[in-house]
Amino acid sequence: MITTRNISRFWEWGRKIICVGRNYADHAKELNNPVPTEPVLFLKPPSAYVTQGSPILVPSYCRDLHHEVELGVVIGRGGTDIPQGSAMDHVAGYALCLDMTARDVQDVCKSKGLPWTLAKAFNTSCPVSEFIPRERIPDPGNVTLWLKVNDQMRQKGCTDQMVFSVPHLISYISGIITLEEGDLILTGTPRGVSAVQEHDELQAGIQDVVTMSFKVNRKEHQ
Amino acid sequence: MITTRNISRFWEWGRKIICVGRNYADHAKELNNPVPTEPVLFLKPPSAYVTQGSPILVPSYCRDLHHEVELGVVIGRGGTDIPQGSAMDHVAGYALCLDMTARDVQDVCKSKGLPWTLAKAFNTSCPVSEFIPRERIPDPGNVTLWLKVNDQMRQKGCTDQMVFSVPHLISYISGIITLEEGDLILTGTPRGVSAVQEHDELQAGIQDVVTMSFKVNRKEHQ
Ligand SMILES: [Mg+2]
Ligand SMILES: [Mg+2]
Ligand SMILES: [Mg+2]
Repeated sequence: MITTRNISRFWEWGRKIICVGRNYADHAKELNNPVPTEPVLFLKPPSAYVTQGSPILVPSYCRDLHHEVELGVVIGRGGTDIPQGSAMDHVAGYALCLDMTARDVQDVCKSKGLPWTLAKAFNTSCPVSEFIPRERIPDPGNVTLWLKVNDQMRQKGCTDQMVFSVPHLISYISGIITLEEGDLILTGTPRGVSAVQEHDELQAGIQDVVTMSFKVNRKEHQ
Repeated sequence: MITTRNISRFWEWGRKIICVGRNYADHAKELNNPVPTEPVLFLKPPSAYVTQGSPILVPSYCRDLHHEVELGVVIGRGGTDIPQGSAMDHVAGYALCLDMTARDVQDVCKSKGLPWTLAKAFNTSCPVSEFIPRERIPDPGNVTLWLKVNDQMRQKGCTDQMVFSVPHLISYISGIITLEEGDLILTGTPRGVSAVQEHDELQAGIQDVVTMSFKVNRKEHQ
């Protein structure tokens, strides 16, 4: 089989999604979590990707699915131990992303010391917008993200509230996990996360740059 | 860029590694964990792969790196909601794998309710053998795995001690996370896990099928 790799369709061939938790102090507080002193990392598999036109599916085991709107950073040039000073040279562009989270399951995982996989890595847990070339977001540390559920604003926050900046995250992650072309980094969510239900319509955007929308369905039990 | 996908080099292009924890009762007990009633899943990224000839690197933040020898299942045909009865049709073959674990970091993650990423997903955390075509392991539920450190036997266990069988794991995982060609499932480790140090030599094998060896180095701090 032959695959042609076009960065504007990174979700078709990219090999990893690295997510940062608690990267906005006001969101850490709303979930009663401490503001971290180093980035909290977790993973989603590429099978979690979903693009506009396909629905977000509530897992059969979840009764409290939350939206988290996040700026995604698409890696253009891989690297290990990337210095902060040159980190932005590794960025091909961005995507608006949702870190869909089975909050009820995450709470159980946290209390039992279990990995977050069931809460974070299920199919359709990573809705993404079209690819945004880096030129369209000159400063990823100063853009406003928003998310509406059924036309009601739920999240609106500026990336200037991030605890760890995009270059900091790229440098930190690449010291532990080598970054490759097509990888995606989810940089955390501002406050306002809340539950979504079957038949809800989610709309999200980055001001003046992109919007996207997704319907929520329930995964049928097999 | 063009990539040719040869299943015998799945680590070069496979997109996910799904690991099962506590799948041998005697290993769950040695770490004082309950024997699970459903599989415990966590992820490694493909950047964790390392093959013979390259060293296992102790992360700079780890003071207690453990070996876990495991049977890896290489997916040949993807699927979602795969029934147990046809699960083995999706297997292309196997690999002997090590689930290298920063046990000290994992203990902190468990006690703080944090994801296991730093403990499990770092570079070189997934050493793998050559690809083993499925014909060479007619019954993955009855093979003996072993691991030696510096010629001393540390782990030796038969896959007949698994809590959840290979077909059960494939069916369970695929109901949550779609499986794709080239994916790897790590099926858990028997008892005998222990710490390795810089300059140690690990040897591991599946009886009558494969052996592999890896040296341990320390990752230089950047
Ligand atoms: Mg995880
Ligand atoms: Mg998030
Ligand atoms: Mg293991």
